[in-house]
Amino acid sequence: MTETPKSHPRYASLVSRNKIVEAMKSGVCTPHSLIAHGRGEALDYLLGETTFPFAHEAIAKSAQLLLESKKPVLSLNGNTAALCAIDFVALSAVLNCPIEVNLFHASEARYDAIKHLLERNGAKNVLVPDGGCVLSGLGSNRRNVHPEGLYAADIVLVALEDGDRCEVLKAHGKRVIAIDLNPLSRTAQMADVTIVDNIIRCMPLLVAAAKQPKSVTNYDNADMLQAAEIQMRTAKK
Amino acid sequence: MTETPKSHPRYASLVSRNKIVEAMKSGVCTPHSLIAHGRGEALDYLLGETTFPFAHEAIAKSAQLLLESKKPVLSLNGNTAALCAIDFVALSAVLNCPIEVNLFHASEARYDAIKHLLERNGAKNVLVPDGGCVLSGLGSNRRNVHPEGLYAADIVLVALEDGDRCEVLKAHGKRVIAIDLNPLSRTAQMADVTIVDNIIRCMPLLVAAAKQPKSVTNYDNADMLQAAEIQMRTAKK
Repeated sequence: MTETPKSHPRYASLVSRNKIVEAMKSGVCTPHSLIAHGRGEALDYLLGETTFPFAHEAIAKSAQLLLESKKPVLSLNGNTAALCAIDFVALSAVLNCPIEVNLFHASEARYDAIKHLLERNGAKNVLVPDGGCVLSGLGSNRRNVHPEGLYAADIVLVALEDGDRCEVLKAHGKRVIAIDLNPLSRTAQMADVTIVDNIIRCMPLLVAAAKQPKSVTNYDNADMLQAAEIQMRTAKK
Repeated sequence: MTETPKSHPRYASLVSRNKIVEAMKSGVCTPHSLIAHGRGEALDYLLGETTFPFAHEAIAKSAQLLLESKKPVLSLNGNTAALCAIDFVALSAVLNCPIEVNLFHASEARYDAIKHLLERNGAKNVLVPDGGCVLSGLGSNRRNVHPEGLYAADIVLVALEDGDRCEVLKAHGKRVIAIDLNPLSRTAQMADVTIVDNIIRCMPLLVAAAKQPKSVTNYDNADMLQAAEIQMRTAKK
C-alpha cells in the first residue's frame, strides 16, 4: 500500500482510496467498485467532507430504529467492507444481528473474500445468499439473499447502493436506513432514514449512537435531504 | 467487454465506464485511473451531462488559440487515451502537432501501452518523456517531458489533470487549455481557457471547431467558470 503522510491535506481521502485499490487486489472489490468510489469522493468533496447536523440527526434516528426493531440486518457490499469492516462488526455486536453480503458483481470468490475479511475483523454472524432465496422484483444478483437475513429482516441498513434495491426492500415491507452521499439519488429519496455522509465518518458515529441511544422525535427525512441538498449546492469549496 | 444496450438510459456513461475498465486490463489505465473516472462521472451527473453554451464558447476559443499558436502540444494521460484516442489523433492531424503522454503513475510499460493505442488509432507523432528533460517546479512523474514536446510548447491542451501541473505550465510561460468537469479546481481556475464538459462530448466538437475555426472576441474565462458553477449548483437533477 502506498504510504501517505498524515500531514497530507487529503490524508483521509487518500487512505480510503488506497484501501479500495488494495481491496480490488484481494478480490473484495471489482474494477467497477473503484469507479463507484470515485463518484463518492466527488460527492463528498462537494458536500464539504464534513458530518453536518442533518447527518447527525439521521444517525441518531437510525440508531433508535435499529435498536427498536426485531430483525435488523446490516447489508454490506465490497466497498463498505473495504472501508468499514470493523464498524459493521461493532454495530452487529451491539445489535446482535447478522451482516449480510449483497453484491451486484457477484461470485463465490468475492462472497468468500468479503466474509473472510469480516471474520478477520471479529464478525460472528456473516450471511451470504443461500441458493434459491430471492427478493422478488430485482433483476440483478442483488436479488439473492439469505432466508434468515435480508429476506426476513424488518429493517435493513444499506450503504453505497443502487437505487432499485431500496425500492424493492420497501415494497417488501422493510424499513430502510441508507447511507448515501447523493441526497438526490433514488435510494436517498426512498429510504426511511438517509444519512448523507461519508461512510468512513458516519459509521463510527452510528456505532457510538447505538451504544448510547437517545429518542429522536419529529424526525422528517425529507427535511434532512433538503438540508443536505442545500449544503451541497451552496457550500464554498 | 460487457454488452450495454443502446436503449439504456445511461448508455454513454456505461460505455465510458467499460472502456476505462478494459483499459486497466490492457495497462493503459491504473486502479487510480478508475477512481478518477468515477469522480468525473459524478461531476458530469451534477453538471447535467450536457455541453452547455459556456463549454461551446470555450471550445471555439480553444480552437482559435491552438490554430494561432506556433508549438501546440496535446497532453494526454491514460483515461484520456482510453476514452478519446481517436479524437486526439484527429486534432493532432489538423494542428500538425505532437501528442505527448504525461503520467502520474508512470512506467515504461504504461507509456508503451498508451503510445501503441494512439498509433493503432493512426497517430503519427506521439512523444513520451525523454530521459533527463524535466519541467522544473513539479515533484511528480508529471515533471518528465520531451524536449520537442511539452518542454518547448507555447500552448498545451490538458485534460483530466492534477492542479499543480497547470500552475507549473503557466509558470513556464505556456498557455493552457484545460478540459475539466470541476469549475472550482485549480486547473480550471488557472487555465487560460477551461472547457467544463465531459471529454467524450467536447473532444469531437473541438476537432470540428479546429477544422472550421471562427474568431472569438471578448472571451472571459472567469465568466465561463462562473456560468458552469451556477449550472452545477442550480440544475434540477
